[in-house]
Amino acid sequence: MTGRLPLLTRRGDTLRYDREKGIVAILNRRLYPAQTVWVDCADLEAVAQAIETMVIQGGPPLAYAAGYGLALALDQATDYSLAQQQMVLAQALERLRRTRPTADDLHTILAEAERLALQALEQNQAPNEVVYGYVAGEIQRGDRSAERCGVRAAELLTDGDTVLTVCYPGAAFNWMLYTAVVKQGKHVAVMPTETRPYGQGIRLTASQALEIGSQVTVINDNMSGFCFSRDLITVYMTAADRIALDGSIANKVGTYTNAVLAKRHGVPFYVLGYDGPDLNTPTGAEIPIEERNGDEVLMMNGQRIAPEGVRGYYPAFDITPPELISSIVTDRGIYRPAMIQRYLDDSNDAPLDVIPLLG
Amino acid sequence: MTGRLPLLTRRGDTLRYDREKGIVAILNRRLYPAQTVWVDCADLEAVAQAIETMVIQGGPPLAYAAGYGLALALDQATDYSLAQQQMVLAQALERLRRTRPTADDLHTILAEAERLALQALEQNQAPNEVVYGYVAGEIQRGDRSAERCGVRAAELLTDGDTVLTVCYPGAAFNWMLYTAVVKQGKHVAVMPTETRPYGQGIRLTASQALEIGSQVTVINDNMSGFCFSRDLITVYMTAADRIALDGSIANKVGTYTNAVLAKRHGVPFYVLGYDGPDLNTPTGAEIPIEERNGDEVLMMNGQRIAPEGVRGYYPAFDITPPELISSIVTDRGIYRPAMIQRYLDDSNDAPLDVIPLLG
Repeated sequence: MTGRLPLLTRRGDTLRYDREKGIVAILNRRLYPAQTVWVDCADLEAVAQAIETMVIQGGPPLAYAAGYGLALALDQATDYSLAQQQMVLAQALERLRRTRPTADDLHTILAEAERLALQALEQNQAPNEVVYGYVAGEIQRGDRSAERCGVRAAELLTDGDTVLTVCYPGAAFNWMLYTAVVKQGKHVAVMPTETRPYGQGIRLTASQALEIGSQVTVINDNMSGFCFSRDLITVYMTAADRIALDGSIANKVGTYTNAVLAKRHGVPFYVLGYDGPDLNTPTGAEIPIEERNGDEVLMMNGQRIAPEGVRGYYPAFDITPPELISSIVTDRGIYRPAMIQRYLDDSNDAPLDVIPLLG
Repeated sequence: MTGRLPLLTRRGDTLRYDREKGIVAILNRRLYPAQTVWVDCADLEAVAQAIETMVIQGGPPLAYAAGYGLALALDQATDYSLAQQQMVLAQALERLRRTRPTADDLHTILAEAERLALQALEQNQAPNEVVYGYVAGEIQRGDRSAERCGVRAAELLTDGDTVLTVCYPGAAFNWMLYTAVVKQGKHVAVMPTETRPYGQGIRLTASQALEIGSQVTVINDNMSGFCFSRDLITVYMTAADRIALDGSIANKVGTYTNAVLAKRHGVPFYVLGYDGPDLNTPTGAEIPIEERNGDEVLMMNGQRIAPEGVRGYYPAFDITPPELISSIVTDRGIYRPAMIQRYLDDSNDAPLDVIPLLG
């Protein structure tokens, strides 16, 4: 069945805090779509490990999971003394912040959750309720932001386009394709790069685009250069795990390489920028790049391929400088990367159809 | 054990024509080094399929296998009439030429083998003997060429280098590393890209470099851009399946992408050019790019990863233009790519240490 909004579009469909059972339930994105398996996390440590092992992936989704994990930890401490609850909060935050350093959403949401929880404790309110309510609201806000970003990005697509992607660009990508293909009737083909070692492109992006109704042609990560050289790609598009105020972005490793190729071959590179830049990151150089366990690089399908004695190296993200980016599409407007700071002054209240292309 | 010349260095160690048993025995490079398995090919069709399925890979090795396959087909036709033997020859050549289009070695060796076999038939000599002798001689000539090319390339390496490679650059790469690391005592680390979908880098290059004594750090194919951006790569080096007279090269898909990155980051790209350009290929545009079965792209370890309905696209090679290549290292000298035609006028008789850097 095609022509529908796929499962990963609304984050609440892939992540639930079941307060009766006392679990955070997370769709396992390492197995999806081959298997639709939910991981029930009964405590903070289980949530943290689900984030670290990429059971959940993507800047906003994993940030929401962390927020629910924090609420769960506070839920389990409601009978504690104030001092004990403060300690639970501090330890939970420390554990969750350690999970993944690159995307800003996790750190932004945990900072606000911390502020709200401390305020609640001070005012003798229930911090678990406050954090739960905040995170649930953030999921709704994030879903709206993704929809606005995606609908806006659909305007950049033309009938006959073939869109190269890296990793899975998240809910805005689904909204973009759904709008362009189903609502606007454009033929838009998608070419996901496999995205080793976890295969987000070959599994997640491929399944989402297929359900929407695009033709999907997967390539291995080493084949995009050839495809650019033969003009098989008309648009290059990714998400961004973090956008710096200078218009640099961090995204899944491989993004930079394809940006260099896109520039060389005159193909536009549009970044799905969701809710804009991170206030606390002046330039791309300040974005920490997560290095994951190098053994993952050496594995295929759970089996080690490399001979004994060989090391693997696994930088999980890379930085793309602003001069390689055509535009950053956000919920407030479309910006040239050098102008992304204007996002901060713009409003997202205006109806989509009257927000001009900025920057 | 390190400090030795690994198994893939001498082609005769991985490919045998056993005339008593009437088989061409080929080391299965799809399983090596995890398993050392020989595939016994009892007729021409079996040899052709071993080439097509990449049981044997690399321009020269697969050309030698084809040559032995041709000798085997003629061996099995010695009792036939002259007309029948001519038909066996023509059909065998047609079958073998269809196996793989990109590398020139196959087509060069088959053309000369055809000429020799027709001459033998005309002169009432045994064409099988003539072809067998020719191919055995070509293996020896190719091994010498690889050694000269590799020893020369070692001069380009400096203590402390980290060499990025794509696929397995063949015997010259082994000779280069052996000369630099074992003979000259240089510390040269090797960073093979995995090389999806078959993993020649993570298996073949990794095992060969490890046996010689290099530190080996494998990355997935999407991680080289990040490594370039952090100055983790000091030299980029690949083989070439075909070198055109304009200095363009065809090599395993992904080569072009890394050449673009190397240029951007000021890292030299040296091509191991073995026995030089193909006389019959004026420019890179004339090199046919093999497209293999797209399903291979969708598989990991024999299991399909992509959801049903998704197509794979598998261009097996790409073209790198001369402006992205620093030098082409051959058995006769080291050439700027624009000067590669001078190879044809130079001699390979001079001792290595007096051949200057040309072009």
